[in-house]
Amino acid sequence: MVAGDIPFRQPLPVAGIRIGTAAAGIKRTDRKDLVLFELAVGSECAAVFTRNAFCAAPVIVARDHLCRQRPRYLLVNSGNANAGTGAQGLQAALETCRMVARVANVTETSVMPFSTGVIGQPLPLEKFASAIPIAFSSLDAGAWEDAAHAIMTTDTLPKAKSEAVDIDGRTVVVSGIAKGAGMIRPDMATMLAYVATDAAVSRKALHDMLTGAVRRSFNRISVDGDTSTNDACVLIATGQARNTPITDASSAQGQALQAALDRVFAFLAEAIVRDGEGASKFIRIRVERGLSETECSGVAYTIAHSPLVKTAFFASDANWGRILAAIGRAGVSDLDIAAITIDLNGVRIVEGGGRAASYTEEAGQAAMRPTDIEVVVDLGRGEARAEVWTCDLSFDYVRINAEYRT
Amino acid sequence: MVAGDIPFRQPLPVAGIRIGTAAAGIKRTDRKDLVLFELAVGSECAAVFTRNAFCAAPVIVARDHLCRQRPRYLLVNSGNANAGTGAQGLQAALETCRMVARVANVTETSVMPFSTGVIGQPLPLEKFASAIPIAFSSLDAGAWEDAAHAIMTTDTLPKAKSEAVDIDGRTVVVSGIAKGAGMIRPDMATMLAYVATDAAVSRKALHDMLTGAVRRSFNRISVDGDTSTNDACVLIATGQARNTPITDASSAQGQALQAALDRVFAFLAEAIVRDGEGASKFIRIRVERGLSETECSGVAYTIAHSPLVKTAFFASDANWGRILAAIGRAGVSDLDIAAITIDLNGVRIVEGGGRAASYTEEAGQAAMRPTDIEVVVDLGRGEARAEVWTCDLSFDYVRINAEYRT
Repeated sequence: MVAGDIPFRQPLPVAGIRIGTAAAGIKRTDRKDLVLFELAVGSECAAVFTRNAFCAAPVIVARDHLCRQRPRYLLVNSGNANAGTGAQGLQAALETCRMVARVANVTETSVMPFSTGVIGQPLPLEKFASAIPIAFSSLDAGAWEDAAHAIMTTDTLPKAKSEAVDIDGRTVVVSGIAKGAGMIRPDMATMLAYVATDAAVSRKALHDMLTGAVRRSFNRISVDGDTSTNDACVLIATGQARNTPITDASSAQGQALQAALDRVFAFLAEAIVRDGEGASKFIRIRVERGLSETECSGVAYTIAHSPLVKTAFFASDANWGRILAAIGRAGVSDLDIAAITIDLNGVRIVEGGGRAASYTEEAGQAAMRPTDIEVVVDLGRGEARAEVWTCDLSFDYVRINAEYRT
Repeated sequence: MVAGDIPFRQPLPVAGIRIGTAAAGIKRTDRKDLVLFELAVGSECAAVFTRNAFCAAPVIVARDHLCRQRPRYLLVNSGNANAGTGAQGLQAALETCRMVARVANVTETSVMPFSTGVIGQPLPLEKFASAIPIAFSSLDAGAWEDAAHAIMTTDTLPKAKSEAVDIDGRTVVVSGIAKGAGMIRPDMATMLAYVATDAAVSRKALHDMLTGAVRRSFNRISVDGDTSTNDACVLIATGQARNTPITDASSAQGQALQAALDRVFAFLAEAIVRDGEGASKFIRIRVERGLSETECSGVAYTIAHSPLVKTAFFASDANWGRILAAIGRAGVSDLDIAAITIDLNGVRIVEGGGRAASYTEEAGQAAMRPTDIEVVVDLGRGEARAEVWTCDLSFDYVRINAEYRT
């Protein structure tokens, strides 16, 4: 089940990026599960990773390799997270880099590894050894769709988005793919997302653009409040569009590219929530007029993570009492409950510490009927705001997670 | 469904306490839903209430009345929480106190009101007006069992416990009742719990004993992480056992009574979790050797609130990767993951940052089979510890909360 639509269009190729895929048989034998990104020489790369202290072996290796030199290859597998695997897992992640480096005749530190799937199982290196050469032999600029499929775990649909934008009279392309679909409450990154542009961008400007785009997209979503051990989000700029290199994210050219990046990131982040495990509703929670953004996002996440609120949305029940109770326990000091208003898809439900005078049960039920729900909480005490996107909690969430071994 | 047993034994009467019940028809017409506790003159009373900023009208009134004078009557209804009801709700809560005061010929401030049930509906005062005289006419020292039933909402079983303890050569009785079963992550109190003893205890010592008992019981449980708007826990000491009054909780007599109180409170708190909405497993999470109790309870609650951990328990799946991921995102700074061990019902599952060498899938599955599961996390960095009790997340949790209007 998917909450609303996740339209899929063939992503645009990005000059300087080739993609190879293979069916390594890591967890399932009937699908592709290995992706190799080849980055042209001179490509810049920025990345953000999970802040989970139990981060996976590939996260540790990828972060280290990115510090050492410009990456030439990203190796991504689904089906096995190589997390909770200790020293042996680190060695395995390094060994997969060596396998790629040997075929491509590059140093192992120019390869970044990424894994997603079951935690705590040893990485089956022999399967990588057979599949990596196949991925190399299939390298192609047009394989973004294959890659979007190959990185999926409990996702039901592939997620990809392209934008084209004019910079210095040149058409610059941005293409990205991402996967969810559970253990989603990204902290600096999402499960896995790869976005590339052929724009020329300096490393510093690219990093600024990445953190800006992530702050406005992946860092405001939550499916179940569980931050993954393997989150990573990578942004690549190959420079092959031959625009004057962007060295400042706040320049006119930087802002034009940032706007395109923001659209791609927001699309992918929203798609992850719509395809969240068991999701039947897409819920946008806007908290406004708080004292600080932290306060607003704290309230928004408390609502987004409340199992009672999420089951009420699943039931399309305008159960505003649960939203109100979540706000009340969000840890905001000196909250004046009489100043708070809550609107559900434009219907005022709470004001003056209780049910709005104008509220009717019929209007509340009608507001809850659509797949897309917007909750607006006005704290009435400041100028800050924050927005969080989440989904409902359904029978299918329980079924998927009682059956699937993450 | 209940996780394990919640044995029910007829509670012992407490000299100085009489209880009346009535079927007011507040939400359902086929059951009792109103309880009146009468406290003998001279009884001392201590109470803790929810810290939810959106606390219900009766919480505000009960707290205020308790500050003003010793209560003579507690009026409790189920079926309507009188929360999120604004100024009108406050007036309604006060009016129920007046109704009791008029019949008993006491001041309205000697009545404490309590409500549990649906949020956001006006309290049906006319139903109280007819039912309160009936409750008065049924006042009886032996009605604890009726009261345990009448305060239930989504609870499937009544929860009551008695202890008898010798103090100064006199037998002192402690009896208590409580109700859950959702929106349970008490913060200073649980949904509703009433415990009474006939011991003579000063107000200050009684308050110390209550906060101590709550800290070791209701404040360590969580069903769904949602702190209710109506939580309240009341401890009454009637003094009719005629022991030398206990004025210091740390005296020998104080400690003897505290031990009996602790057993009653722990029983009731555990019963609330076992009867948690949809619960099929009772999970005791002990986090040891942290730097502080706050750090340990933070880790324990992060595990207890993880939907992925809870669904894995529902599936009896030894999915330790999810526990590890929860620990990793618990916000503990400078966590040395290599120093951490995790045991599941005595089976070592994680050490050295990954799966324990001695671990086998068979041993893990066997450890998960019982209804009662103990998770022990050793952080290996200090001397503090904390314990939290929770239950699993099942299909029934979703069904109950998609159907029930709290």
